[in-house]
Amino acid sequence: MIVVMNPGATQKDVTKITDKLKTMGYGVHLSTGENRTVIGVIGQRREEAAQAMEAMPEVEQVVFITRPFKLAGREFHPEDTVINIGNTSVGTDEVIVMAGPCAIENEDQLLQAAEAIKAAGAKVLRAGAFKPRTSPYSFQGLEKQGLQFLNEVRAKTGLLIVTEVMDQFTIDEVAECADIIQVGARNMQNYYLLRELGKIRKPVLLKRGLSATIEEWLMAAEYILSGGNYDVILCERGIRTFEPYTRNTLDLSAVPLVKQLSHLPVIVDPSHGTGLSGLVPAMSKAALAAGSDGLMIEVHPNPQEAVSDGPQSLTPDQFRNLMEELKGVAASVGRFI
Amino acid sequence: MIVVMNPGATQKDVTKITDKLKTMGYGVHLSTGENRTVIGVIGQRREEAAQAMEAMPEVEQVVFITRPFKLAGREFHPEDTVINIGNTSVGTDEVIVMAGPCAIENEDQLLQAAEAIKAAGAKVLRAGAFKPRTSPYSFQGLEKQGLQFLNEVRAKTGLLIVTEVMDQFTIDEVAECADIIQVGARNMQNYYLLRELGKIRKPVLLKRGLSATIEEWLMAAEYILSGGNYDVILCERGIRTFEPYTRNTLDLSAVPLVKQLSHLPVIVDPSHGTGLSGLVPAMSKAALAAGSDGLMIEVHPNPQEAVSDGPQSLTPDQFRNLMEELKGVAASVGRFI
Amino acid sequence: MIVVMNPGATQKDVTKITDKLKTMGYGVHLSTGENRTVIGVIGQRREEAAQAMEAMPEVEQVVFITRPFKLAGREFHPEDTVINIGNTSVGTDEVIVMAGPCAIENEDQLLQAAEAIKAAGAKVLRAGAFKPRTSPYSFQGLEKQGLQFLNEVRAKTGLLIVTEVMDQFTIDEVAECADIIQVGARNMQNYYLLRELGKIRKPVLLKRGLSATIEEWLMAAEYILSGGNYDVILCERGIRTFEPYTRNTLDLSAVPLVKQLSHLPVIVDPSHGTGLSGLVPAMSKAALAAGSDGLMIEVHPNPQEAVSDGPQSLTPDQFRNLMEELKGVAASVGRFI
Amino acid sequence: MIVVMNPGATQKDVTKITDKLKTMGYGVHLSTGENRTVIGVIGQRREEAAQAMEAMPEVEQVVFITRPFKLAGREFHPEDTVINIGNTSVGTDEVIVMAGPCAIENEDQLLQAAEAIKAAGAKVLRAGAFKPRTSPYSFQGLEKQGLQFLNEVRAKTGLLIVTEVMDQFTIDEVAECADIIQVGARNMQNYYLLRELGKIRKPVLLKRGLSATIEEWLMAAEYILSGGNYDVILCERGIRTFEPYTRNTLDLSAVPLVKQLSHLPVIVDPSHGTGLSGLVPAMSKAALAAGSDGLMIEVHPNPQEAVSDGPQSLTPDQFRNLMEELKGVAASVGRFI
Repeated sequence: MIVVMNPGATQKDVTKITDKLKTMGYGVHLSTGENRTVIGVIGQRREEAAQAMEAMPEVEQVVFITRPFKLAGREFHPEDTVINIGNTSVGTDEVIVMAGPCAIENEDQLLQAAEAIKAAGAKVLRAGAFKPRTSPYSFQGLEKQGLQFLNEVRAKTGLLIVTEVMDQFTIDEVAECADIIQVGARNMQNYYLLRELGKIRKPVLLKRGLSATIEEWLMAAEYILSGGNYDVILCERGIRTFEPYTRNTLDLSAVPLVKQLSHLPVIVDPSHGTGLSGLVPAMSKAALAAGSDGLMIEVHPNPQEAVSDGPQSLTPDQFRNLMEELKGVAASVGRFI
Repeated sequence: MIVVMNPGATQKDVTKITDKLKTMGYGVHLSTGENRTVIGVIGQRREEAAQAMEAMPEVEQVVFITRPFKLAGREFHPEDTVINIGNTSVGTDEVIVMAGPCAIENEDQLLQAAEAIKAAGAKVLRAGAFKPRTSPYSFQGLEKQGLQFLNEVRAKTGLLIVTEVMDQFTIDEVAECADIIQVGARNMQNYYLLRELGKIRKPVLLKRGLSATIEEWLMAAEYILSGGNYDVILCERGIRTFEPYTRNTLDLSAVPLVKQLSHLPVIVDPSHGTGLSGLVPAMSKAALAAGSDGLMIEVHPNPQEAVSDGPQSLTPDQFRNLMEELKGVAASVGRFI
Repeated sequence: MIVVMNPGATQKDVTKITDKLKTMGYGVHLSTGENRTVIGVIGQRREEAAQAMEAMPEVEQVVFITRPFKLAGREFHPEDTVINIGNTSVGTDEVIVMAGPCAIENEDQLLQAAEAIKAAGAKVLRAGAFKPRTSPYSFQGLEKQGLQFLNEVRAKTGLLIVTEVMDQFTIDEVAECADIIQVGARNMQNYYLLRELGKIRKPVLLKRGLSATIEEWLMAAEYILSGGNYDVILCERGIRTFEPYTRNTLDLSAVPLVKQLSHLPVIVDPSHGTGLSGLVPAMSKAALAAGSDGLMIEVHPNPQEAVSDGPQSLTPDQFRNLMEELKGVAASVGRFI
Repeated sequence: MIVVMNPGATQKDVTKITDKLKTMGYGVHLSTGENRTVIGVIGQRREEAAQAMEAMPEVEQVVFITRPFKLAGREFHPEDTVINIGNTSVGTDEVIVMAGPCAIENEDQLLQAAEAIKAAGAKVLRAGAFKPRTSPYSFQGLEKQGLQFLNEVRAKTGLLIVTEVMDQFTIDEVAECADIIQVGARNMQNYYLLRELGKIRKPVLLKRGLSATIEEWLMAAEYILSGGNYDVILCERGIRTFEPYTRNTLDLSAVPLVKQLSHLPVIVDPSHGTGLSGLVPAMSKAALAAGSDGLMIEVHPNPQEAVSDGPQSLTPDQFRNLMEELKGVAASVGRFI
């Protein structure tokens, strides 16, 4: 960390600050430039220390020179993390496709979707039992009954299951029927939930928050990793911008960037990322070309009857066609589906 | 709601859509323009119906003509809501100032802050026992012990207390020592928490999410209102933009806008809104001039020793001076402190 | 266009508005719902009419149901536009790569870059003679001398040239040495410049503004098209968001979306879009997979000595490798380089 | 400036970088921490040098510790700049109100607006002859005839005039009839225009760009100041965010922040800042309370007939009432109108 003194700082001011830093256990290194005195601070990065420094009237600003994440960072773990789930893995040359309806509506709908995506080559069924909805008057999910349907469809189809958990008190129930536990974008900074997910031994799919920086996203992963659960899959799903034509702006540059900064696998959800089924095929291909380890795609047996997210859901036919096209794109970047 | 047909839609397409709308219980009203057929849909706004329509290939877009909030809207409740809390009220000509440290660090710090803000004229003490922190390695709050300190300081000073609740399972504990229960920005769309807050009978301070639109914010209030708890105070605390010099961009236009759209009182938090104590006085005055019903300001006995948010905290002296200045500004817009 | 009356609007209010609309030459179509009267307005979309309506106290809001662009829209021109430039074309199955340094620094640097990109398979040399720079103290481009170097290098290498024009008064000079005239992001809404570009007969590369919506971008193209110049190539180059790790957020979803809305070709600039050379290869591949008609990539003989944009420039070696990889990705989506 | 070496940098790498810095004329100061070697660079801030450093593979990042603006900064000029215009001044305890229609439509409209705002106490008439419009099919301004009308109304009313210039080639014409030359938001980074405005001796009103950071805005001012024209008035007019209810998000925190960073006067345009006349009074008061040196407000004799921006224009009556209310707010912060 670097502490930049005010332009008019005196020798006494500098001594006051360096003394305080030493009291905090830091080493200091002075550098006096033409306009500013700069203090190189030697020791562990700590937000508290930085804030204390920023609150000093003699200090102009504090600059971090290291990233705040540790366990999630490449420096800590240079090799790519591979997460084994059932008979498959995330983070290898194989691209994993997770697909299915936004919400579980009934057993038939879920089974139809599951069979369709399985036939097309997807390995993981996505479907929500607990649904975070903007309006209290919208369908809020089948909840426990939805989990039961998931269990039955898992048994019938052999598909792996990813489904969302909404609070720390239903983790156990969800973990019973899910192979991957999803943390939704709205919960990315629900730290009490993240802490509990650090204590279990199931892979967690951590969606990027609507307006989360990549650093905040990796810090959310750090909560889970620091609890002892190392199996975190990151999922880019679009960020909020000023553009109104799309529901969100899918930030595909997050894929190669996260791969530089972190060892964790990262997948992409082009359905939420765009909100428009007509854009999903192009953005799915783009995600693979950008290096994504997988995709999460909404597929509904009949999008026009979906209780939620119909406009961004593919039909089974559209999904099957897309899966065919994706094989070529994956191959072009040395991957396979 | 308005359904806009595709440019090339045939009579048969239009009939298909109007039939489906009628099946859903809606009345329809056709309007054929030069380039588009537009269907006026008569009946209650329902997101599910809109999404189903948008998923139809014959439909270009769906446009809402009413707002999604009901109980939170001015149409439903034309008069300003006044919320009585102890011997004071929010939403009258009196401007309510809530002040105190970001986090409860120990009993002394809390009591010092409380006495200072009381002496300066604040009526409500703010202080967090449960702290949502970006890093798992940062101080996470004193939790239950913090609530205990709040109780003691409430008894000693007679100040009202506002403090944050982080999940639905600690609502009762928090409600025991708080006069106003705060929902933080990160939890604005934690719907399970909002639903439970709808069942209690204590005022809720609902902070605007970091990237929440005003409509989403009012829909979060709608969750609480629709559960039966009508005492919701909205709090603007800055939104995330591209500007790096400030922590957030304080959206003061939200104040008069919310007052047009809703009957709920709205206050402003310039401390989080800017992240810089040097901007807090100017933005506090601006908030009152814009019509805010109150302020929430971070004050710490010694910001340089604060474990969190020191850079945005006022000293007791700065706060006392600000309170003096605010009286004049309040008076200039027909209010008082 | 749809005019939504206030909730309390009387019959008299409605008549006032419909009369005014008729005076403006519009047909009207009334639809009375449970909460609102809605007026379907038949006739050409005009911003002036919409604003006049919105300024009426009896009107709650005005909603457009058609897009504002005409000549740029797919409805007007259903087939893809193909733009012929020299012996090549933009908008066919062939993907066009434009590459070169950010700024022309001297003749050697330019020639080295040109030869390197030509050897690697690029067809168009990009290089700026006029440079818009945030700081008045930064290098502002070689200006006229730069254009001369471009001419010489064009003659020597046979490469096509794309270079930026900064104002309407240097269009002729730039057009003399450029095969494609570039409008930079900062000038996307420089309407006087756009108007003049509508009068020439040279292809224009129109970069998306830093915070331009897709609609505004297409309206900027509309300025050029409406002047009579139909050869506009759109270029996505990243938008401004809250994310600090990248210079901009490359909005690849703009590619398939623009292709739906418009017939114009669209290319992608991953160099400005990310600001980081390490992300350029992944995002170049992603752009092609998303359906981009081309790429614009910064290549510098020696990025560490570049006077601008070194951090986002590829070396000739990196560029050659990338071109090899791009061939496979292009093929996987039915294109070639 | 601080150069942060890669985590694995060797002694040889460090020497390579320090040697290069010395060649560039910088002094260096090494600081070796636990994880990184940091080089304090002594000498003038130069973007070119920073970019060259960032392009070196041995370097992780470059951090600036000084601001890029010089002449616009408080360090260079600690006292507030006061700009004398005719018989009035901007930047004193007097708050200056500029008001009038968005566009000049005809002489009557302009004169009516002028007389109304003069009667209410405004000192400067704003009205546009050259109009930047999103659509090529919208009214583009009366251009030269508009300037003539401005001249006539100036003579009749004695009001000062502020009007927009759209390119560097009409500066002289505009300067003849304007007391203050306005640079619109879309032209904030039209550097060729800014350079020419640096050569004249007339006050320039520099609007903040739609997505300009405060630093970029001050750098745009720096272009004008570095040309020798020291009379720059900054104008905050709203930034682009994700919020759709308002046209822009008025960033009032820019006012106290600019006052800390710079000596230049700053005013606020709540009309463009919100896009809604109903929010203009509240935001005008808030602007004054935040410390703004003035206001720019759209007033139209008949907003319902305005050719542009009717929805955000006040009527003469509304403006007169607002002016009355503003007096009290100004007084409450030690200013007057």
